[in-house]
Amino acid sequence: MIEKKWWGDYEKIKFPHIVASQQFERQQLETLFKLTAKIEDVLEKERMVNWLYGNIVTLMFWQPSTRTFSSFAAASVRLGASIIPILDAGKFSSHAKGESLQDTAIVMSGRWKSDLIVVRHPEIGSARSMAKYSRCPLFNGGDGPGQHPTQALLDLYTIQKEYGKIDGLKIAMVGDLLYSRTVRSLCYLLSKFDGVKIFFVSPESIRMKDDIKEHLTENKIDWKECTDLKEVAPKVSVIYQTRIQKEYFSDIKEYEEVRGIYIINNNIIKLLKDDGIIMHPLPRIDEIAYEVDKSPNARYFEQADNGDVVRMALLLVALNPTKAEELMAMPLDKAA
Amino acid sequence: MIEKKWWGDYEKIKFPHIVASQQFERQQLETLFKLTAKIEDVLEKERMVNWLYGNIVTLMFWQPSTRTFSSFAAASVRLGASIIPILDAGKFSSHAKGESLQDTAIVMSGRWKSDLIVVRHPEIGSARSMAKYSRCPLFNGGDGPGQHPTQALLDLYTIQKEYGKIDGLKIAMVGDLLYSRTVRSLCYLLSKFDGVKIFFVSPESIRMKDDIKEHLTENKIDWKECTDLKEVAPKVSVIYQTRIQKEYFSDIKEYEEVRGIYIINNNIIKLLKDDGIIMHPLPRIDEIAYEVDKSPNARYFEQADNGDVVRMALLLVALNPTKAEELMAMPLDKAA
Amino acid sequence: MIEKKWWGDYEKIKFPHIVASQQFERQQLETLFKLTAKIEDVLEKERMVNWLYGNIVTLMFWQPSTRTFSSFAAASVRLGASIIPILDAGKFSSHAKGESLQDTAIVMSGRWKSDLIVVRHPEIGSARSMAKYSRCPLFNGGDGPGQHPTQALLDLYTIQKEYGKIDGLKIAMVGDLLYSRTVRSLCYLLSKFDGVKIFFVSPESIRMKDDIKEHLTENKIDWKECTDLKEVAPKVSVIYQTRIQKEYFSDIKEYEEVRGIYIINNNIIKLLKDDGIIMHPLPRIDEIAYEVDKSPNARYFEQADNGDVVRMALLLVALNPTKAEELMAMPLDKAA
Repeated sequence: MIEKKWWGDYEKIKFPHIVASQQFERQQLETLFKLTAKIEDVLEKERMVNWLYGNIVTLMFWQPSTRTFSSFAAASVRLGASIIPILDAGKFSSHAKGESLQDTAIVMSGRWKSDLIVVRHPEIGSARSMAKYSRCPLFNGGDGPGQHPTQALLDLYTIQKEYGKIDGLKIAMVGDLLYSRTVRSLCYLLSKFDGVKIFFVSPESIRMKDDIKEHLTENKIDWKECTDLKEVAPKVSVIYQTRIQKEYFSDIKEYEEVRGIYIINNNIIKLLKDDGIIMHPLPRIDEIAYEVDKSPNARYFEQADNGDVVRMALLLVALNPTKAEELMAMPLDKAA
Repeated sequence: MIEKKWWGDYEKIKFPHIVASQQFERQQLETLFKLTAKIEDVLEKERMVNWLYGNIVTLMFWQPSTRTFSSFAAASVRLGASIIPILDAGKFSSHAKGESLQDTAIVMSGRWKSDLIVVRHPEIGSARSMAKYSRCPLFNGGDGPGQHPTQALLDLYTIQKEYGKIDGLKIAMVGDLLYSRTVRSLCYLLSKFDGVKIFFVSPESIRMKDDIKEHLTENKIDWKECTDLKEVAPKVSVIYQTRIQKEYFSDIKEYEEVRGIYIINNNIIKLLKDDGIIMHPLPRIDEIAYEVDKSPNARYFEQADNGDVVRMALLLVALNPTKAEELMAMPLDKAA
Repeated sequence: MIEKKWWGDYEKIKFPHIVASQQFERQQLETLFKLTAKIEDVLEKERMVNWLYGNIVTLMFWQPSTRTFSSFAAASVRLGASIIPILDAGKFSSHAKGESLQDTAIVMSGRWKSDLIVVRHPEIGSARSMAKYSRCPLFNGGDGPGQHPTQALLDLYTIQKEYGKIDGLKIAMVGDLLYSRTVRSLCYLLSKFDGVKIFFVSPESIRMKDDIKEHLTENKIDWKECTDLKEVAPKVSVIYQTRIQKEYFSDIKEYEEVRGIYIINNNIIKLLKDDGIIMHPLPRIDEIAYEVDKSPNARYFEQADNGDVVRMALLLVALNPTKAEELMAMPLDKAA
């Protein structure tokens, strides 16, 4: 059953904020994914519904992200909400005049202004600080190298949709494990499931940090570090590839050294299990060869598409939980 | 009674433009505030209405202002209008290629394009110039150090809502009186009422200009300049605090000297009358201590909220005067 | 009759993309302009219709253009579509992180994201590259010095609306013929008609390129190069004036020399035929004197207005061809 604050008592939140991927319990994730599938089913038949009519979703983006921005925008609009788009908030907002994030949160969540705010901000913890003061639900759309919980949810949903389960799967995380926010968040979510095994495949200089490894161990998730993608490829159901993010390297030489080591091309695809899939949070540069796009194992574009529907499910629970419950109660093929 | 061009024959305007706070007569202000209260009453029950369906409100912002932008956006959308958001117009618009504001106004107010334009521009007089050529109503959302009439209206509405009247109130304006557009505009509006007394509390270097003081005197508004906030605080119903705006100081040393002199903290709150209120146009930096946020005397966040509804009232009169009149004719509790 | 892919088999397109003005056949242009007139007729009576309800139009602009942006936005919204506005995509998009246009196109045209994408990008060929991979119709909103097909269509529609025909008209193109994208595109369109005569009036340094002149000759369009506007003015039905675009000159001295040579003022107006009209793609700087604005021969602002309705017609054919056909089948005065 869906309750208005169904993601629980996370830091005694007053509203159904989404700040970190850890805040979701396994059962909530399962409910969320069932809801997502139902919404997807409805939208196959209708391009837009009015379930969120009357709601304003304000998109405050301090940091570039066409992908996350347009995904939240589309998710809002397809469910009937209106959006207030604020791109480039870093330069444009009152925060630029020296206002605290606290004040920005209070004002932007004003009585008549926003029914929900999506925030993307370059500083770790910014979304959490704002959520504390927001007068409406606030979703973290990425706080720098910190968290990007909705990305983690769409990643997990993509795996769930493919295999019908998460338990017992073997998953390789490849490339930039030190700086990749998406890999970190996905690990937190995977730790809620049973019998998962994770392979961390990366150069030594950008290995996964200890905190995640310890978290996995504590939650009885088997993990292994290795450097040879060819050895790992045949063993896993999912290869989660990442971009080596230039913007986090101060030393350009080091960047050049590590990028391109783990390029996925058709030679890697041949090593995969028949039902193995390639995922990537995108944008890619050259870490997946274009020849892979046509492979039946490629899932990265579907993964991006899934993000729109997962975000719809989250918006629906936050803004119209009654409709969400109604959908859950219907058999899948009658959801429309 | 509301007429389509109810703010009169201001510079023989063809459309109900809003250019300067002076253009409103006392009776119009009173009508506007009654309408605002009715709209507020309706929106308590419904989150969105369709009174402006069919209208496009174009938001052309040359200058950063998340607050004003999102307020006009929310006001438009809650009444059922659609918005075309143009942030960063300075860099982005044809004006950047050398087009005159006159041509920009003619094109942006095109037959099918905008039903109303909100303009924010860094140059004094820019809104007035554009209004002259606009083919639809144009609202000034702030023209640099010039005017910001909707801010002045929301300030006045906040006072009216608190005390049920403006006549006879004592009001302190504190801080940056030289450069603060909002204080100047508010003074123009207060000069339409009777028995108001204004205290200008500021360092000498940023005192109120003579034009406003002369205007007040001509309109029989009592005013006094002083430097000691503690002396003034117990005497007034409203303290209107301002931010010392760094961007207007060429000499950083002078800025550092004057900022922070009139910080409002709980010591000032203790000196206030029981029903005295603290207002601030926001954003604040440190001129109101955070401890004041929880005081029953703080009104600055409500003030920001009020802006959304006041702007709704203005949009409604400009774009659907029939509905505005209909609302005015209904008893308050039946407005919905 | 309108078919879903009624602009034919242009490069074996899967979707009704609009990439270049050449792709339209004469008959399609005539159909499009009849449809445009019908839409105009409906919108005279209603300010908004719901024909595109359920559709999301994503506006991805890498290059400044308030005019094209707001025109597509208004066209979408007036027909009932929702917009996702992405201005400043150059800095803001994943493309800025090194993503290929190909990937951007695939993701932005995602299953739930966009029903149609409008792209403005500074590189020639960018729209064509993206259209190849887009999973929904994509409209070229200008690809640098390349094409700007919807501008060309609105230019042609303005002439058609004025004279009820294109065949047999004499048209002068004036000013920057070397760099002007709009002039080039308009020439391609004019070449589909019979008996048109074009006068290219420009300084030698910015004359029309050979490719267009050859294209015209191949299509039996009469053209002539000359330098004296006064000699040409009395002979033509249309003077199409252009801005000398500073941004394409590396040598500022050369720019200063050529600009301002062909200013249209009331002295030129006096030389015109009675029914001769002045057009301009806008923005103008000083190449048309302001005194001309009041002349009955000025059409440049109507021309800009026409752009909104022509774009509506294109959107309608791409997203709701059934409604487009329905409109076409009705007599003009019953279209509403």
